Amino acid sequence: MVMSQRGEFGFIDYIKANFPVQEGTIGIGDDCAVMPAGEGELLFSTDLLMEGVHFLRNESSPEDVGWKAAAVNLSDIAAMGGTPVATFLSIALPKEAQGEWAERFIEGYTDISRRYGVPLLGGDTTSSLRDIAVNVGVLGRCPSGKRLMRTGAKVGETIYVTGPLGDSAGGLQAILKGIDRTEETDVLIGRHKRPVPRIDAGKVLMESGKVGAMMDISDGIASDLRHIMKASGVGAVVALDKLPYSEQLHSVCAEHGWDRFELATSGGEDFELLFTGPEGLENVMDIKVYPIGRIVQGNNLTWTLDGKKADFDFNGYKHF
Amino acid sequence: MVMSQRGEFGFIDYIKANFPVQEGTIGIGDDCAVMPAGEGELLFSTDLLMEGVHFLRNESSPEDVGWKAAAVNLSDIAAMGGTPVATFLSIALPKEAQGEWAERFIEGYTDISRRYGVPLLGGDTTSSLRDIAVNVGVLGRCPSGKRLMRTGAKVGETIYVTGPLGDSAGGLQAILKGIDRTEETDVLIGRHKRPVPRIDAGKVLMESGKVGAMMDISDGIASDLRHIMKASGVGAVVALDKLPYSEQLHSVCAEHGWDRFELATSGGEDFELLFTGPEGLENVMDIKVYPIGRIVQGNNLTWTLDGKKADFDFNGYKHF
Repeated sequence: MVMSQRGEFGFIDYIKANFPVQEGTIGIGDDCAVMPAGEGELLFSTDLLMEGVHFLRNESSPEDVGWKAAAVNLSDIAAMGGTPVATFLSIALPKEAQGEWAERFIEGYTDISRRYGVPLLGGDTTSSLRDIAVNVGVLGRCPSGKRLMRTGAKVGETIYVTGPLGDSAGGLQAILKGIDRTEETDVLIGRHKRPVPRIDAGKVLMESGKVGAMMDISDGIASDLRHIMKASGVGAVVALDKLPYSEQLHSVCAEHGWDRFELATSGGEDFELLFTGPEGLENVMDIKVYPIGRIVQGNNLTWTLDGKKADFDFNGYKHF
Repeated sequence: MVMSQRGEFGFIDYIKANFPVQEGTIGIGDDCAVMPAGEGELLFSTDLLMEGVHFLRNESSPEDVGWKAAAVNLSDIAAMGGTPVATFLSIALPKEAQGEWAERFIEGYTDISRRYGVPLLGGDTTSSLRDIAVNVGVLGRCPSGKRLMRTGAKVGETIYVTGPLGDSAGGLQAILKGIDRTEETDVLIGRHKRPVPRIDAGKVLMESGKVGAMMDISDGIASDLRHIMKASGVGAVVALDKLPYSEQLHSVCAEHGWDRFELATSGGEDFELLFTGPEGLENVMDIKVYPIGRIVQGNNLTWTLDGKKADFDFNGYKHF
């Protein structure tokens, strides 16, 4: 199917067909999407992905870009313990991407949206001179006052993550260095291309009432933990040897001599949740959580290895 | 002030300083913005503006781009009769626009946001290889079931607009043709660069309970009216000589031999409201409204001039 023959309105009809109308809401086709205000609190987040910065047209499949554009936003709702209820997609396409590329993008976007039952309720389509631009907005809900903020970390709390770190960065490195593909590298690359927003884990943690502060890991804990520290006015100590690593990352790092500490702390895009809470949660929660350190007084982030201070100071990615 | 010296987080702090925290909401600084769900229905709209398609960096001031990026979205809320309550700004900036350009953009965005009392509650900042990309999302509210849709036009209703048409297109033409600037051209150019979302008029019309269908005029009535016709399953007759024209457009068109019918019907970006309702509203409403035609059976858009069918068939702008 060739999108450019459909024109702008044909493309919108194609998107509409992928997202049937939800009861009680008005989606694509009028000036605004409409939905009942409902109960509790609203959460909103938005992310803008630019070709050449966030993805390369020749190295990412359009389906993967579509998946990831939605995933990073759903992850922001997960990071507050909320439930995503609708997304809004704006997309700017240069002429040569208005056909197959656009359609395959929508397939990936539809895949993840269906997996989490989140309707696409509106957006904007436009042309672009050169670069593809994709903006996703997501609306979520949370019971009043229960959302988990970055501001809630308290001295003495344990720091946890919900899953292995560094896989996404390892996958990206495998792509960029063009190393031989193995079963292990494919797992890492899959984690990079199709990150999974931890929506269920976020809700379990919100409902537990035990969490101090929470956020999702988008830039790497070396950068993200500093956001919690700054927002909460605390310091942190993190044990590099307590960070959860996947078997695949272990094995690929061993084979290629890569530093898994660096990938895990600074690579980013794991989209696991980073949170603080009382000691021992790893023994009482229904979901897997991994203690990696503790909140301390002050404003420093200290790394340890085998119980000793490690000479280590990575920072996350800054856009400018 | 040079933004690039501030870096990404410095720029975010600058934006935050322009938009003080609203009581009961959590804005910039966490994974999501948070606000109470409140009453009634939520409205949401989003628009993506690309450099080179929607504005030229050398021909539009950054302040005007910032104003317009917010204006077109606020206008979508006005188009439903809603009240805007928050905006969300995503912006991708190439290196050379990360300083003064970005800061001046925020000034224009702040101007219009303050004028309508709408806080900026969140967004995303990122770098771009080449083109500036700006996405604005806006959240609005409306009492349940009262929002005015494109679907409500009924045969026999009169078609109205809330103000003069073609000024924005005339202003754009004045810029593109580089004609000598006069007081009149400056008014038109001002209407093009700083369009005014008709939020108050939209609310008055929503509260009147008299309106069948409504939308805002972004592409020109030749295109926009067809959206109402398609959504409502009706035809329309529009009198070219009943369209409201500003004195300035009259005078500039006369001087330069421009066709004001074409500018008024196809130019777009006037952001006046286009709506249907009972006859005679121009005599009973507290706001100015101009009858321009009527809704008829069928699916054709017919133009008349001096009461006779006019040979005229313009279409609005399509992005692809």
